[in-house]
Amino acid sequence: MQSEIINIGDELLIGQVINSNAAKMGQMLIQGGFTTRRMITISDDKEDILASIENRLPDTKVLIFSGGLGPTRDDLTKNVLAEYFDTELVFNQEAYDDIVALFAQRNFKVTPTNQEQAYLPQDCITLPNKVGTARGMWFEKKDLIVISLPGVPFEMIHLMEEQVMPRLVAHFSTKPLHYRTMMTIGIGESFLADKIEAWELGLPQDMSLAYLPHYGAVRLRLSCTDPHPESSIKRINAELAKVVPLISEYIYGYDEESLQEVVGKLLLKRQQTLATAESCTGGYISHLITSVSGSSAYYKGSVIAYDNDVKKNLLEVSSDNLEQYGAVSEAVVKQMAEGARKILKTDFAIATSGIAGPEGGTDEKPVGTIWIAVATPDTCIAEKFQLGDHRGRNIERSATLGLNMLRKMLIQ
Amino acid sequence: MQSEIINIGDELLIGQVINSNAAKMGQMLIQGGFTTRRMITISDDKEDILASIENRLPDTKVLIFSGGLGPTRDDLTKNVLAEYFDTELVFNQEAYDDIVALFAQRNFKVTPTNQEQAYLPQDCITLPNKVGTARGMWFEKKDLIVISLPGVPFEMIHLMEEQVMPRLVAHFSTKPLHYRTMMTIGIGESFLADKIEAWELGLPQDMSLAYLPHYGAVRLRLSCTDPHPESSIKRINAELAKVVPLISEYIYGYDEESLQEVVGKLLLKRQQTLATAESCTGGYISHLITSVSGSSAYYKGSVIAYDNDVKKNLLEVSSDNLEQYGAVSEAVVKQMAEGARKILKTDFAIATSGIAGPEGGTDEKPVGTIWIAVATPDTCIAEKFQLGDHRGRNIERSATLGLNMLRKMLIQ
Repeated sequence: MQSEIINIGDELLIGQVINSNAAKMGQMLIQGGFTTRRMITISDDKEDILASIENRLPDTKVLIFSGGLGPTRDDLTKNVLAEYFDTELVFNQEAYDDIVALFAQRNFKVTPTNQEQAYLPQDCITLPNKVGTARGMWFEKKDLIVISLPGVPFEMIHLMEEQVMPRLVAHFSTKPLHYRTMMTIGIGESFLADKIEAWELGLPQDMSLAYLPHYGAVRLRLSCTDPHPESSIKRINAELAKVVPLISEYIYGYDEESLQEVVGKLLLKRQQTLATAESCTGGYISHLITSVSGSSAYYKGSVIAYDNDVKKNLLEVSSDNLEQYGAVSEAVVKQMAEGARKILKTDFAIATSGIAGPEGGTDEKPVGTIWIAVATPDTCIAEKFQLGDHRGRNIERSATLGLNMLRKMLIQ
Repeated sequence: MQSEIINIGDELLIGQVINSNAAKMGQMLIQGGFTTRRMITISDDKEDILASIENRLPDTKVLIFSGGLGPTRDDLTKNVLAEYFDTELVFNQEAYDDIVALFAQRNFKVTPTNQEQAYLPQDCITLPNKVGTARGMWFEKKDLIVISLPGVPFEMIHLMEEQVMPRLVAHFSTKPLHYRTMMTIGIGESFLADKIEAWELGLPQDMSLAYLPHYGAVRLRLSCTDPHPESSIKRINAELAKVVPLISEYIYGYDEESLQEVVGKLLLKRQQTLATAESCTGGYISHLITSVSGSSAYYKGSVIAYDNDVKKNLLEVSSDNLEQYGAVSEAVVKQMAEGARKILKTDFAIATSGIAGPEGGTDEKPVGTIWIAVATPDTCIAEKFQLGDHRGRNIERSATLGLNMLRKMLIQ
C-alpha cells in the first residue's frame, strides 16, 4: 500500500530544524505495511499544499501531513484542507473540552487563539490529541485518505501511534512488515559485516539485513516480508539464533533495548546498586541511567566532579595522584570509581575522566583521551580510550563505553 | 531565486536515517539568496527521478539532487541524468586520477567498481570532490540548472561549499536573505502570539515572522527579503527592538544561543561559579551545562541525589524535613540547593526534586510535580511546577525551567 508524507514548515525549508518527523513517520508506516514512495517538505502555503495533494503519485492511497496546525497566523493547513474537501470549520465541543482540560492541568487560561483550535472541518474524523491542543484530522475522498497531524514531534508520534496507524492498518488490512533488531556494541560496522558475511549471503530471499550504526553501537535489523506473522517471527528468530555464536561477545540486547535498560535489568535481578562519578561525561551517564523509569530501585546517584577540588573533597581522590598523574589518568579514575562506591554506598560505580574537547588537549593527552573505570565489590578495572575531537560525540561514546564495561562485569 | 532539493535514498524513506542533508542544503541555499520552495525524498528509481525533474514547480530555476551516486548496483542517478540531458557517460581521466590519489592516501587499492565512478556524463560540468570518489555534476538546459551531489553528508557539504554555492551565486547574481532569531522561554506559543499580535500585524510586507517552539522555549524568527544586506539587518533589528518591551521578561538570547550558553556567559562575566543538586533531572542539567565547551571555568560539579540517603549524607538535607515534607517539597529542594552551594563551594546552585513519572505519583503529589530551587550568596528561592506525565519531557522541561530561574537571578 503506497503512502506519501508531506511535512509543512518554513523552519524545515530553511534548514533551521532537521526533519526528524519524516523519518519517524516513514518508520511507523513501513512497520504497518505501507511503502512510503515519496516525502515532500513544503511551506505553509495554500497553493503548495493543494499541489501536493493534486500531484500525488498515481498509486498513492494515503497522504499524511504533519505541521501547519499551530494556533498562530502562519498556520493554514486546516483551512486549506477544509476547502479542498469542500467542508466548513465548525466548533467542536469535545476538542474544546480537551484543550480546557489540558490547560487546567497546567494552570493556564484558554486564550481566544487556543479557542480557534477547536474549530475543525465538519466532514472529517477528528483524532483526539492527549498531549497537545491541535487534533489530528482524517479525510476520505474516493480511494484517497488524507491525514493531517501537528508538527510538534511528540504530538505527531502520539497521534501516529494511538490513532493513525491502528486506523490505517484496519482500513487497508495491511500485513505489517516483521523484523527484529539485534543490538551490538564494541565492534565497527565493517568488522561486523566481515564476521557475519557468510550468514548474511545465505539469508532467504524474503529476508533482508540492515546495519544501523550509532555512536559505537551497531543495530542489526533483520526483516522479513513473509505475510504470516507467526512464521515470519519464527523464521527471523531462527536466523538470528544462527548468527549469535559468531558475534556473541558484542550482542547486548534485542529490539531497541538501550544499554542503560539492559544494565538496569541486570542490577535489578542481582538486587545490587550503582553510582557514578563523572568528570568528562558531565552527568550524561547519570542522565541515561535515570531516563529509565524505575531506575531509583538500583541507582543511588552520582558525584559530577568537574572540578579537581570536588574530586578530592567528595570522592577522596588523593592530591598526590592528581599532581603526579593529572586528572585524566588511570590512578585518578580508579579512585573516583572507588570513592563513589564508598561514599554513595553502592555495589558498583562507573567513573570517567577525559578530555572531551575541543579545547584542553596536550601532546601527551590529546583531545579524545578518555579513562573509564568500573569499581565492583571485588575489584576495580580501568580502560583508556582514544576517541575523536567532537565534544558531543566524545561524551556520548564515553557514556556508552562506560555502561558497556559495567555490563560485561555484570554478566561474567 | 527558487530552488528545490531532491534527496535520494531508501534509507530515508523507511526512516532508518534522518535526512540531515536536506536541512543543511536548505540552510546554505537561503544564505546564498535562494528560496527552497520544496524538498523531496525519493527512492533511487528511474521513474521517480525523472518525475522530480519534469514536475518541478513552475518557477524553479535550480534543482539539487543528493544521493544515488555510490559505486553500487542500486545507484542509478548518474545514468538517469545522462539520459535526461541526452548525453553519454565517458571516461574522465581527471576524475580517475583523483580517485587513485584518494585511495593511495588511505592505502586502498582501486577496484573495478570504483573505476566506474570515473565515467561521467559528457555534457556537464563535473565538480571535483576532494573528500570522496563521486564527483558532483552540473547540468544546464534552457533556464534550468540541475546539480547532482553524493549523499554522504560531509561530501555533500564539501561540494556545496566549494563548488555549488559559489557557482550558483555567480550565475544568478543573488542577494542573500537576512534573518535574526529571538530566543524566548517561559511562555507558550499562543500566549506569546497574543502579546505581540499588534506588532506582528504591523510588520512591513517584506518581513515575515515564524514561531519555532521547542520544549518550553519558543524561537521567534524575523526574516526580510529586502535585497540590501545592511538595510535588511538594520530594519530587522529595528523591528525586534520594538517587540522587546512587550515580552522582555521572556527573552533570553538571540540567534540560536542556548540557555546553558547564556547562563555560562553571565557566570563568566561575573566570575562566579555554579553547582547543581539533581534528583528528578538525574544529571540532565549538569549534562546541558557541561555540553558547552569551556564550562569548567564556572561549573564545579553536581551531586545527583537520586536516593534520599545521598540527599542526607552528601547534601546535608535533614531527616526531619524528608520525613515531614517528603523529598518532593520546598523545604527539601531548598536544602539541596544550599547544600550543593556549600559542599561544592560555589556562588550559585540549582536543585531539582520532583516526580518525573510515569510511576511514583500520589493524589497529593501527582506525576509531573516538580520543585526547583536556586541558591545564591544572599538567598534561596524555590518554585513549584506542575508538568505533564511524560518522563523524558518532564526531565527536559525541568532542566530548562531551572536554568531559566538561575538566569533571571543573574540578570537582576
